Amino acid sequence: MTSDLRWPGGKSAAAAFTFDVDAESAVLWGNDAVAARMSVMSHQAYGPLVGLPRILELLDTHQIPATFFVPGHTAHRYPAAVRRIVEAGHEIAHHGYLHEQPTALTLAQEIEALDRGLQALAEVAGVRPVGYRAPMWDLSWRTPELLVERGFLYDSSLMDADHPYELAVGDGSVVEIPIQWALDDWEQYCYLPDIAGSGLIESPRKARELWQLEFDALRAARACWVLTNHPFLSGRASRAAELGDLMRYVVGHDDVWTTNLGAIAEHVRTLHLPPRTITRPGPA
Amino acid sequence: MTSDLRWPGGKSAAAAFTFDVDAESAVLWGNDAVAARMSVMSHQAYGPLVGLPRILELLDTHQIPATFFVPGHTAHRYPAAVRRIVEAGHEIAHHGYLHEQPTALTLAQEIEALDRGLQALAEVAGVRPVGYRAPMWDLSWRTPELLVERGFLYDSSLMDADHPYELAVGDGSVVEIPIQWALDDWEQYCYLPDIAGSGLIESPRKARELWQLEFDALRAARACWVLTNHPFLSGRASRAAELGDLMRYVVGHDDVWTTNLGAIAEHVRTLHLPPRTITRPGPA
Amino acid sequence: MTSDLRWPGGKSAAAAFTFDVDAESAVLWGNDAVAARMSVMSHQAYGPLVGLPRILELLDTHQIPATFFVPGHTAHRYPAAVRRIVEAGHEIAHHGYLHEQPTALTLAQEIEALDRGLQALAEVAGVRPVGYRAPMWDLSWRTPELLVERGFLYDSSLMDADHPYELAVGDGSVVEIPIQWALDDWEQYCYLPDIAGSGLIESPRKARELWQLEFDALRAARACWVLTNHPFLSGRASRAAELGDLMRYVVGHDDVWTTNLGAIAEHVRTLHLPPRTITRPGPA
Amino acid sequence: MTSDLRWPGGKSAAAAFTFDVDAESAVLWGNDAVAARMSVMSHQAYGPLVGLPRILELLDTHQIPATFFVPGHTAHRYPAAVRRIVEAGHEIAHHGYLHEQPTALTLAQEIEALDRGLQALAEVAGVRPVGYRAPMWDLSWRTPELLVERGFLYDSSLMDADHPYELAVGDGSVVEIPIQWALDDWEQYCYLPDIAGSGLIESPRKARELWQLEFDALRAARACWVLTNHPFLSGRASRAAELGDLMRYVVGHDDVWTTNLGAIAEHVRTLHLPPRTITRPGPA
Repeated sequence: MTSDLRWPGGKSAAAAFTFDVDAESAVLWGNDAVAARMSVMSHQAYGPLVGLPRILELLDTHQIPATFFVPGHTAHRYPAAVRRIVEAGHEIAHHGYLHEQPTALTLAQEIEALDRGLQALAEVAGVRPVGYRAPMWDLSWRTPELLVERGFLYDSSLMDADHPYELAVGDGSVVEIPIQWALDDWEQYCYLPDIAGSGLIESPRKARELWQLEFDALRAARACWVLTNHPFLSGRASRAAELGDLMRYVVGHDDVWTTNLGAIAEHVRTLHLPPRTITRPGPA
Repeated sequence: MTSDLRWPGGKSAAAAFTFDVDAESAVLWGNDAVAARMSVMSHQAYGPLVGLPRILELLDTHQIPATFFVPGHTAHRYPAAVRRIVEAGHEIAHHGYLHEQPTALTLAQEIEALDRGLQALAEVAGVRPVGYRAPMWDLSWRTPELLVERGFLYDSSLMDADHPYELAVGDGSVVEIPIQWALDDWEQYCYLPDIAGSGLIESPRKARELWQLEFDALRAARACWVLTNHPFLSGRASRAAELGDLMRYVVGHDDVWTTNLGAIAEHVRTLHLPPRTITRPGPA
Repeated sequence: MTSDLRWPGGKSAAAAFTFDVDAESAVLWGNDAVAARMSVMSHQAYGPLVGLPRILELLDTHQIPATFFVPGHTAHRYPAAVRRIVEAGHEIAHHGYLHEQPTALTLAQEIEALDRGLQALAEVAGVRPVGYRAPMWDLSWRTPELLVERGFLYDSSLMDADHPYELAVGDGSVVEIPIQWALDDWEQYCYLPDIAGSGLIESPRKARELWQLEFDALRAARACWVLTNHPFLSGRASRAAELGDLMRYVVGHDDVWTTNLGAIAEHVRTLHLPPRTITRPGPA
Repeated sequence: MTSDLRWPGGKSAAAAFTFDVDAESAVLWGNDAVAARMSVMSHQAYGPLVGLPRILELLDTHQIPATFFVPGHTAHRYPAAVRRIVEAGHEIAHHGYLHEQPTALTLAQEIEALDRGLQALAEVAGVRPVGYRAPMWDLSWRTPELLVERGFLYDSSLMDADHPYELAVGDGSVVEIPIQWALDDWEQYCYLPDIAGSGLIESPRKARELWQLEFDALRAARACWVLTNHPFLSGRASRAAELGDLMRYVVGHDDVWTTNLGAIAEHVRTLHLPPRTITRPGPA
């Protein structure tokens, strides 16, 4: 069904560069003790301190509007960095408060994480986000309803399509802009002993090949390519250099609409697609 | 011995593209709680929803008859998708009900999984499969007898040969069409946090190199190349593009018989090979 | 010191192709229950059944005398395969009975494993090996003395040199021919769910690059390149094809002495090198 | 801020080759039982016995002054090897006594590790180091103060910058020269069953590509490239050959100041940079 989705201005496909600005939150959640590891904290701090400015410069060079998913904790700890994102004209979206994995929370905890995140983004950046991505890319079956109740336009945490769609939520819906693990930099670059990563670290050349092949193929499918980078990973110098080359490649395709997720979601909403119902698997 | 196996029509080797259509079953079995993770479920749903149609189109383009191993749970959850496989003329084979690992089951449980799987394929697709592949590629020593009792012609779960053979089962036998881990897409592409995968994700270029080198070498050995892809993995756009290129490469070899496993098994049965007895290792 | 080691006939370096013929033993030891997994057993059986004959053919093509480390259990389960190794003129060496990891054994158990292994090789192949390699490449500090007591000429399980040396054992010594993890196929190819492997499987092209670079560099160092392959892994068709190309590359270097470990050990023994004492680290 | 850091003599960037000479200590700490594994001990001993001399030769060939982080245990076990480093004119720096992970220690234990390390380097090599790197690259929040109390000029264990900086410690400061996991050889090469490593081993070609891309990019950023190699890993012949080629590449850039960390730290100290305060994240 979704393959009939029309892009604006006769474009054949869409592309979005998105960034999960996790900083310390991604390792602190569920693991308070890790705060005692100064090197680990510094590894995460590289994101807002060095990676983020470098990425903002790349986006400026290539004139790409991007989406930044910012946990509330990051906003409170690095307010100036988060404000720079807004000042540069990019979209800020919701990514929990302390990067809480929704499926590990009670309903009350999930509500608290959502509302604390909203409050932090309002306080620090004066922003009310319209988009959400589940920390750990691990949406619960409750999350879509909580998003609709709070007026969110879109979610970007599911993996069952190449094209955005309207996800049915009660009588309404939320736009879903799907993602996939192969378009994430975590699997290519992340290594934190005892915390995360396979233990191997890939060359930026390999990561770029992987992402660019998928861009070519999703473009041919008239679909929506959504890349996710973490400033503490892809903000490193050579990775950012490859990312910049990839940006040049992507924007070099005139038939592709390169924009942020908010703009894509707004467009999808104008199409009045029939909402799609997803059923939770029951006991077999 | 099996190196003397003759292929029909003077062909020098055989090649089969096979697909394990696991969808949600592969992660739900033995782990009910994972149903609560909406993103994980959506990752698996990509297979029948998007990957499978794309793969069917590739097979049509290259005019390749393929084999799809379909768990009963997938058939019940995605009946239209499974019927499309049948309508396209491909073979449906057995892959458990909820992708149950045979070696983790009691005899009664293994029987139940087999019979529920048969019933689901009959109900949904009107099919009585002649082929079986053990979920997790983990055949128990009981399975061959259970297959013979149910009239299966072949199994495709063992790894001790490059050529098909007759596996002795009591006074009879079942055709065995061997597989190998290096001709599987799981090791190259699968990543599901806390569930599966090494944590790394390979480029489709690398996977294709690996599979094509083995095709060249098994062809030279006059053997049987059996590739296994999962629609939720290799149905992704760029992976499917590489898979399509590989299909073109394989069918471009006129001396290779590219067909489904059912046809290979029928041919092997006509050869009246002496059944081979495999003995379970005892205590050392 | 060892860099002054002279090779016979004015050769500048030595190279050996060695094979650990583990078959089922490597997964059965310490894990009886794995015998219930027919597919896993078949994965290991591929070694003696298919991989070994293919490797023997390669060695014959390139006229390379090789060393095969054969656990007693493999000899008892595949006597014909083991005899073919002997008939082809290759060296058989000791690799435990059931691939027992020496450091996990009591002294009595280590003695039993050594003596059962000797007995099995005598019974099946009429061979009294002069060489030993610890299963899991995990020599205990007791093993060298046990080897000397049984008249072994050499061990090949340590990793602290590029050149062979005399390892002091009491008043005597045993020749040590060092190995290294990067010259092993296990890390590149092995995948057995829940049992072994990183989960990734590399292309034979990558493995060959790795091994060939080390050959070039150890040749330049006038040292001893010892490659280890497992027939159940590198006996696969495309891996064997790359291994064959590597054999051609190695024997194409006239200045390198390509031979088996027994011949290398005999040569080293003639040099009357001063034995080297290795001290076990004490508490810090 | 730090991007304004000026390099001496109008150089545009700095580069340092550093070596963590862990030998046995890295695996013995917290795991006494591993001393029973003779092969594992020999794998570590390769570093001081073979890898280190090879690396010293490379540094001499390319006329590069380097920094060696030497645990006290290594100094006591391999005094001649450590003295050769000093004699060759390289810098010796502190790396704990038995490679103790600072964040796993009590304050008293951390002090003891620091002081035992100092004493060992004094005894063996007559050296009082001015630099420190935390074992496991895992600095505790206490460590900087302990370093200042002992008169250290610099630390090299944090990961939050591309340029060195002054890290505020009470009223004073210590120069911090940041590192990163992608410029370490452990992730590319290390494999010790049951102890360390992802299980995969990369080709030296891939490691070099990764490190060289980051050199190019950090040079463009006018920053400080700090590579870390372990002699027991990168001292292997083909890895050392690639490392030598990389050295040639780096010193071939006249605009880059290739030197040791001590020289970089002294330069940074002359700049009188305002110390930077890092705050430990509190409970969220």
